[in-house]
Amino acid sequence: LSDDPETQSFEGYSGIALKLLKHSGAKKGSKVKVKTTDGFEATGLIIPRYEGDSTDYLVLKLKSGYNIGLDAKTISSVTLIEDTRTEAQVGPLTSPILENSSGKTVLLFSTGGTIASKVDYRTGAVKPAYTAEDLYSALPELATIAHIKPEVLFSTFSENLAQEHWTKLSEDIVSRSRQGSSFDGIVIMLGTDTMAYVSAALSFSLIGIEFPVVCVGSQRSSDRPSSDSALNLQAAARFAAYSRAHGVFVAMHENENDATVAIHSGVRVRKNHTSKRDAFQSIDIPLFARVEQDRILINFEYPDIGKCIEEYDIRKLRFKTNFETKVALVKFHPGLDPSLFDYLANEKGVMGLIVEGTGLGHVSSRCVSKLKELVSKGVFVGMTSQCIWGHVDLNVYATGIDLIRAGVTPLGNMISETALVKLSWVLGNFPGEDPNDLMGLNLVGEMTERILLKP
Amino acid sequence: LSDDPETQSFEGYSGIALKLLKHSGAKKGSKVKVKTTDGFEATGLIIPRYEGDSTDYLVLKLKSGYNIGLDAKTISSVTLIEDTRTEAQVGPLTSPILENSSGKTVLLFSTGGTIASKVDYRTGAVKPAYTAEDLYSALPELATIAHIKPEVLFSTFSENLAQEHWTKLSEDIVSRSRQGSSFDGIVIMLGTDTMAYVSAALSFSLIGIEFPVVCVGSQRSSDRPSSDSALNLQAAARFAAYSRAHGVFVAMHENENDATVAIHSGVRVRKNHTSKRDAFQSIDIPLFARVEQDRILINFEYPDIGKCIEEYDIRKLRFKTNFETKVALVKFHPGLDPSLFDYLANEKGVMGLIVEGTGLGHVSSRCVSKLKELVSKGVFVGMTSQCIWGHVDLNVYATGIDLIRAGVTPLGNMISETALVKLSWVLGNFPGEDPNDLMGLNLVGEMTERILLKP
Repeated sequence: LSDDPETQSFEGYSGIALKLLKHSGAKKGSKVKVKTTDGFEATGLIIPRYEGDSTDYLVLKLKSGYNIGLDAKTISSVTLIEDTRTEAQVGPLTSPILENSSGKTVLLFSTGGTIASKVDYRTGAVKPAYTAEDLYSALPELATIAHIKPEVLFSTFSENLAQEHWTKLSEDIVSRSRQGSSFDGIVIMLGTDTMAYVSAALSFSLIGIEFPVVCVGSQRSSDRPSSDSALNLQAAARFAAYSRAHGVFVAMHENENDATVAIHSGVRVRKNHTSKRDAFQSIDIPLFARVEQDRILINFEYPDIGKCIEEYDIRKLRFKTNFETKVALVKFHPGLDPSLFDYLANEKGVMGLIVEGTGLGHVSSRCVSKLKELVSKGVFVGMTSQCIWGHVDLNVYATGIDLIRAGVTPLGNMISETALVKLSWVLGNFPGEDPNDLMGLNLVGEMTERILLKP
Repeated sequence: LSDDPETQSFEGYSGIALKLLKHSGAKKGSKVKVKTTDGFEATGLIIPRYEGDSTDYLVLKLKSGYNIGLDAKTISSVTLIEDTRTEAQVGPLTSPILENSSGKTVLLFSTGGTIASKVDYRTGAVKPAYTAEDLYSALPELATIAHIKPEVLFSTFSENLAQEHWTKLSEDIVSRSRQGSSFDGIVIMLGTDTMAYVSAALSFSLIGIEFPVVCVGSQRSSDRPSSDSALNLQAAARFAAYSRAHGVFVAMHENENDATVAIHSGVRVRKNHTSKRDAFQSIDIPLFARVEQDRILINFEYPDIGKCIEEYDIRKLRFKTNFETKVALVKFHPGLDPSLFDYLANEKGVMGLIVEGTGLGHVSSRCVSKLKELVSKGVFVGMTSQCIWGHVDLNVYATGIDLIRAGVTPLGNMISETALVKLSWVLGNFPGEDPNDLMGLNLVGEMTERILLKP
């Protein structure tokens, strides 16, 4: 928050902790050995603190990748081992294959986000970054799970990831898939903010994939003692290496303890808490699987999600990696001015729209009329619910029936975010077709009941 | 769904159930006596069926207000008692005070919505409607709780309720409040779709109110055997009559059984399921109270929510019933075109904006720049999270810090819907002031921690 170099060097530190750092000659990013009055000894990197944490606290990133917080009042000495490395010293990107005797190989893609923000602590850079070398040093446990081939695809805060990134990620995976089976699965490290949008995008673009693609992130930034990076990443790697599941998944803490990691369907998962480690939840559906230490527990009660695809020619849907940008998601609210829809369709050329209605999928009467105009002009309008859980149903109330008559497509219990992504995919890859045909079919489990639009 | 008169008369009925109806001369809205082969006998109104229910099923609304579904195969006779009443026969609006010996009086306002849709079954009218007479006949149990003074304020689907209705409702309550203590509390029957928006609006406009105002609705329309209208309404009336709580609340089923009704804070409640009876949840906060049959259990661990108001002159905030319409809520999504914000500010003259960001409150870098422009033009921009649960925090990541620098106001864990309503209220009643002053204060528990914007 400050441009002052000294403040940057000791970012977030004050009081006794700051004095200890200055006395030792260490600063943010330095490697230090810390001893405490009760005999504890730890070596690690000084990582920055953020407002809101208690102040008299020194936080170290250990070699394991875990962070620990040490009460400054209990610290007897801080010894500088190695000064802060600068960005140039981190070295060029290499892709070492970590040796492992399991015979399993996992590709580990980094895209940015909290889970990949470790290098920040060395360079002070604000942008997230992670190199293969960083991965190796941070999480040596991964090497006990499988051969790991890390690669940095891009380094972007997840709130900036959009259609172009979904396409690049899809094409990177498709190209490797076509190179043959030199690996067992792929883990993608993502920022959690838009992880569910990305996992949904890949779920559609990778229809027909024959290995697990596991999106993984971290809710607690690595500068905090409660970071969940290591457990999530290990579970994701394990699931990618051993599950033999085909499809796209999200691996995140199942609850507040460090015992299990939930494996969610990539199209039915949502970030439902801003900060908790178990922020991600499967919506209207049980978990696909759970990783407990070295065990993978697949849920064999999980609903069958493949039926609709069989009716379609799989070759038609497989590996379609375009995403149309002329789509929008609008959350309805009381007093919403319907001319917004005119603006989107007429001024911005939006070809398809997801409306997040209230309850079973309703909007005000004024909006119904406007949506009817849009549909008559050829804009696809799909309805989801801002309730998060449950199905939209446009057959119960008069407003719903009016929406059906207006040509609005009810999208079952498709999550709004998934619906936007699917629409972007449908419009991007099947431009000559009526989007209703694919939007109304349950392709990869994005609806937990099949919706028949044209009975 | 059909314009055919015969289909309308037997809406949703088919098979044996339809044959029984036709044979007896009864149709939708008729009062009938039904006997079953196992000796069961019930009198009630035939109510329409909807797609998705099992077909061989006759549904009666009993005098208690509960519905029962009877398996058509077990029915031995259906006797017509009274034919369908037409709208004209329902009679003019009267406001009988139902006699009760408790000495408590509750005003019962009807505004439309599922809970007030009983008259549909008699007239076939699609619009919701409820008269005082209907109330009396449907829920005689209410009279055992308190004197009930029912009134129809308006009859509108809740998705059409907006600022003007919030103001009318507020003024109706304020005017009665000023008439003196001839009642103990008010129950407002609302459609559930926008109930949380309405309860939030009243929470602000009725700051300083000295009795309970209880919003109540029904998730299952009264035509369904699982309707929750009666239990919710009884609990709401009980809470309004006896709790002596000051403020605005929402009373809805606590879980899937019929044992308890949850009493939520009007500003921290959200409809989180499209159809379940326990769709409403308190967000980041425990229930304010619970009604178990004739007991009211107040949660004395509930956070103190009054601190900030004391610092303000209560007379300044009390009974301010205007709501500005030039406000908007925008849910951020990947690929969102930032020119949308220009349109809202420049074309539509929006004075304040709530942005529902990702995670801790983030939007894409392109949107950050655009929001900065808006703020510099005097548009208030507040940030909430689409995660639903948890606090926004703009101090953790670079994007958040950029948003703070852009002048965007973080709104703690205020629910997006509440934030929109509060902004509409602040701009509507305090036009000359910086909206940040009130938006950043916790007035009625809309944030579970006080947010200090200007330390």
